[in-house]
Amino acid sequence: MNEQLRKVAEEVRDKLAVAKQRIVFAESCTGGNLAATLAQLPGISSFLCGGFVVYRNDSKSQWLHVPKSVLEDPGPVSSEASKLLAQGALKHTPEADVALAITGDLGPGAPDSTDGKVFIACQRRGEGAVLSDLKLAAPPPQSPADISARSMRLDEATYRALSLLLQWL
Amino acid sequence: MNEQLRKVAEEVRDKLAVAKQRIVFAESCTGGNLAATLAQLPGISSFLCGGFVVYRNDSKSQWLHVPKSVLEDPGPVSSEASKLLAQGALKHTPEADVALAITGDLGPGAPDSTDGKVFIACQRRGEGAVLSDLKLAAPPPQSPADISARSMRLDEATYRALSLLLQWL
Repeated sequence: MNEQLRKVAEEVRDKLAVAKQRIVFAESCTGGNLAATLAQLPGISSFLCGGFVVYRNDSKSQWLHVPKSVLEDPGPVSSEASKLLAQGALKHTPEADVALAITGDLGPGAPDSTDGKVFIACQRRGEGAVLSDLKLAAPPPQSPADISARSMRLDEATYRALSLLLQWL
Repeated sequence: MNEQLRKVAEEVRDKLAVAKQRIVFAESCTGGNLAATLAQLPGISSFLCGGFVVYRNDSKSQWLHVPKSVLEDPGPVSSEASKLLAQGALKHTPEADVALAITGDLGPGAPDSTDGKVFIACQRRGEGAVLSDLKLAAPPPQSPADISARSMRLDEATYRALSLLLQWL
């Protein structure tokens, strides 16, 4: 874990501890990396319920009940999908106080309209979701063999999501 | 992602592709790192359903129906818990063919009997689970502030679980 990521992860943990709140994640494009980043901090199990790594449409609909109509239009990489994922994660996790859901397209081969786009929903139980979207700075992978470019995008999405979470908490 | 981890992740992906099988994870001690490691490979969404990061007892029981009696005895860090987590993950994921569940105690402050112990269950739909356990070679964190020791243990658990999965597939 690089220093920058570790710092923001520790700040998130500290904010959750002060607020005595537990978080649950619903991760599509980051594939579990948000939960795994926090999981590296000793003592985090008091504040981290865990997460749903909803990597395919079926996981999004079967586990968190995102309607198939939404996964068709506007599609899984959308603000609407992120909102429903956060809602679903909170609903399935009675002991969680807050949820963060993330969905995006890291490429390669993504259409221009979604390439590098990431949608994030933060929700506190009983309140409405706060929706954000961002465009990754890291360039798209040039081919299916270009793992390092994809890895950089995944790391950037993780860092920016945790930064956003920190501001929001 | 280091070279060794990347190599085993690519080999797992290639085996899943040849066998045309999809995997789902249930991760406790690795906190999502197994799914996140595979998620770095472009094209993996054909074979990776995602995973349940069941970081707390409540997540294990609420999401994957591990009975509270098992979480009390023999406890969440046990062969029995890993078996039930794999079963639960398959049950909730109709399109998955195989599941890997992992649970362990990375410390700090773990009792000697469980410190660095990791339990892994691999299951193919319709078959019995194959159970493994291992002791991590990396030393325990010396204090709650010792993130790098914990991070090394998390990485070792991830690498050894993927190596075991590769052999088993």
